[in-house]
Amino acid sequence: MRAVDLIQKKRDGLELSTEEIQWLIEGYTDGYVPDYQMSALAMAIYFKGMTMRETRDMTMAMVASGQQIDLSAIAGVKTDKHSTGGVGDKVTLILAPLVASFGVPVAKMSGRGLGHTGGTIDKLESIKGYQIERSQEDFIKQVQEIGLSVIGQSDNLVKADKLLYALRDVTATVDIIPLIASSVMSKKIAAGADSILLDVTVGDGAFMKTIEEAEELSRTMVDLGKEVGRKTVAVITDMSQPVGRAIGNRLEVLEALEIMQGKGRADVTEFICDLAQIMLGLAGVEKSLEEIEDHLVNGRALEKFEAMVQAQGGDLEDLHRPSAAPVVTSIYAEEDGFITELPALEFGLFAMKLGAGRAVKTDPLDYEAGIVFEKKVGDAVKTGDLVAKIYSNEKISQNGLTEFQKNVKIGGVQMKPKEIIKIIS
Amino acid sequence: MRAVDLIQKKRDGLELSTEEIQWLIEGYTDGYVPDYQMSALAMAIYFKGMTMRETRDMTMAMVASGQQIDLSAIAGVKTDKHSTGGVGDKVTLILAPLVASFGVPVAKMSGRGLGHTGGTIDKLESIKGYQIERSQEDFIKQVQEIGLSVIGQSDNLVKADKLLYALRDVTATVDIIPLIASSVMSKKIAAGADSILLDVTVGDGAFMKTIEEAEELSRTMVDLGKEVGRKTVAVITDMSQPVGRAIGNRLEVLEALEIMQGKGRADVTEFICDLAQIMLGLAGVEKSLEEIEDHLVNGRALEKFEAMVQAQGGDLEDLHRPSAAPVVTSIYAEEDGFITELPALEFGLFAMKLGAGRAVKTDPLDYEAGIVFEKKVGDAVKTGDLVAKIYSNEKISQNGLTEFQKNVKIGGVQMKPKEIIKIIS
Repeated sequence: MRAVDLIQKKRDGLELSTEEIQWLIEGYTDGYVPDYQMSALAMAIYFKGMTMRETRDMTMAMVASGQQIDLSAIAGVKTDKHSTGGVGDKVTLILAPLVASFGVPVAKMSGRGLGHTGGTIDKLESIKGYQIERSQEDFIKQVQEIGLSVIGQSDNLVKADKLLYALRDVTATVDIIPLIASSVMSKKIAAGADSILLDVTVGDGAFMKTIEEAEELSRTMVDLGKEVGRKTVAVITDMSQPVGRAIGNRLEVLEALEIMQGKGRADVTEFICDLAQIMLGLAGVEKSLEEIEDHLVNGRALEKFEAMVQAQGGDLEDLHRPSAAPVVTSIYAEEDGFITELPALEFGLFAMKLGAGRAVKTDPLDYEAGIVFEKKVGDAVKTGDLVAKIYSNEKISQNGLTEFQKNVKIGGVQMKPKEIIKIIS
Repeated sequence: MRAVDLIQKKRDGLELSTEEIQWLIEGYTDGYVPDYQMSALAMAIYFKGMTMRETRDMTMAMVASGQQIDLSAIAGVKTDKHSTGGVGDKVTLILAPLVASFGVPVAKMSGRGLGHTGGTIDKLESIKGYQIERSQEDFIKQVQEIGLSVIGQSDNLVKADKLLYALRDVTATVDIIPLIASSVMSKKIAAGADSILLDVTVGDGAFMKTIEEAEELSRTMVDLGKEVGRKTVAVITDMSQPVGRAIGNRLEVLEALEIMQGKGRADVTEFICDLAQIMLGLAGVEKSLEEIEDHLVNGRALEKFEAMVQAQGGDLEDLHRPSAAPVVTSIYAEEDGFITELPALEFGLFAMKLGAGRAVKTDPLDYEAGIVFEKKVGDAVKTGDLVAKIYSNEKISQNGLTEFQKNVKIGGVQMKPKEIIKIIS
């Protein structure tokens, strides 16, 4: 087989065989298919797509390119959850312990943030002492003991994806649905859970800009999961404004604690209960929203979360400490009305520049920095009301303040945001 | 500037600016734009094309990536000629001295063969002692003295093209008209001639498979040449059968000598006179076909050719020596009729396997090997007539003979091949 012939085949709109896809992915992982052929192939796929059969073969070839986690030593239906990325998205921090609090084991590997989007692992690392690296044995042992562990993704998992993702990032081949689907699903399949909840974000702060794209991606991933025997459901969720109140690692941990103490905003609390009901359902555990909310606001989820933090070396005292950012800047409403827009992308980038995120993978993080909104889309405001607080290491420049204020859109019409747009199963 | 943004721009169908193209080509030559970004860009260009403005900017950026030859020390209008590649294409060997015999200086850099297509430089190297490497000073001095020199292309010329051509070859991005045009024209422009005759071959033995493609490529290259002040004409010529009688380096030199001694086939003799008339016209020298044919068949072109061979160290005795191939196999017609097809690609590959060409760049050549046809398309044959002789180092296998015979198509209808299909100026 020659890579050039396979690139041409795809370029000319033909379907690659199972063997051809396996050969390409093995070759890429082993280094005999070089980057420059893989990037040309990815661009051909951008224009010509892949069939479901090709996408499945690509996914399974990627799974085979690295280690596969065997969770069979853990009793029960193991659940996992993945978000396609968002701003202020602390859902995993709450959802994982909430589901675990019903006795459904959650063994989850999470990623780091890049660009305007955050990563669960970065948020957990803002807790003093929290260890994100665990041996497979320790990981399984902890889930057996307390029903919950969230760790960083092993470097040995889906080696082809690591290479391919980095390559796509610099060759304008990121936004290709079959490649996004195979990237996400290969990691979820290799991570070993029996059931998978996919949170496919849509809106200006997400990869998917339209509901149509999000639906196509969701459908592809759900079908992929089912074809390999994993119960899979996707929810399409709104990322036109940040999730909840906080953006920034420490600030999001604090908001998660707030929600698990019954002090969260009603919208985000409800949203998380809805997701928990789906995730529990995937594990065959049917619970009413009332039962779920009771676990969430009455400390059962928090107890599980603290157990995990402690088991992974985290300091419980530090966990509840407020942000240590030396500068806190308040932003006030400049007119009466309703908040109509809080563009997620803009605030994600703003927080990134504060140090809450990374422009490039090697950037250091400022765990304490970020934004906390007192008002969200749909909320009424009067001139002078506190809209948000910015937590930073240095004073915010006048330009920065003007930019922030410009993105807080206030108008006469009250919008009702919808967290879950659609469920695809 | 970031290469990924420029790839995305092209991918999305937008036009790249002059500065953007210059930055990409400079970056690629200097190594800060890596192969994997350039191949993704090439694939995006495959699908989205380039405007004439982009193609011109690409061409001139490539010219600027290497040395540019200054031929101004040579008096008169310097002419150059390029073929997009063919089988048995010894035209340059005859056309260059023929034009020079009218006092029009020909300072030409030629390439090597690859795959089923031959290269003028390989053919000249089949002459014992012929030096294809010359300093720029010696090259110019020889043209000043005898009006003619054909040398190998300097490694310092159009550095970006060397890189890009090798990359396109392995990423299924060869057959892209704006990239072919900028590759050819950047080399011709950098080589310094004032006027350029482009021989755009079409047919199964050529890159361009259809007349429409050949016309588009011709139009693009002619416009490119004109925009940078070079008189440029393209002729679209037939490459459905080999040019003339011989395929193979030494055998083609011998056919060239035959033609320059008035013993060539009438069709190829006429074809070369037509091209010479165009090339002379580009230099402002108007000659009748009779005058030109007189120079060709009465030894004036041959005299010029021998002067060049001698000036470049070639052995004149060796020049006229027949092929030293130890095995000569005759092929006879198996039925009565007319030759209807002699597919150039098939015979080009057959000759390549004999050692007349290279499957990969590093393959050694057997200068003596090849094929000489006694009959061409349109010729009448009777069963048992000699059709061709195969010159080889080893005995041809029975499979090889069967394959050869299969490709000599004989039928009841007499086809009239047309050498020049169209002239684009």
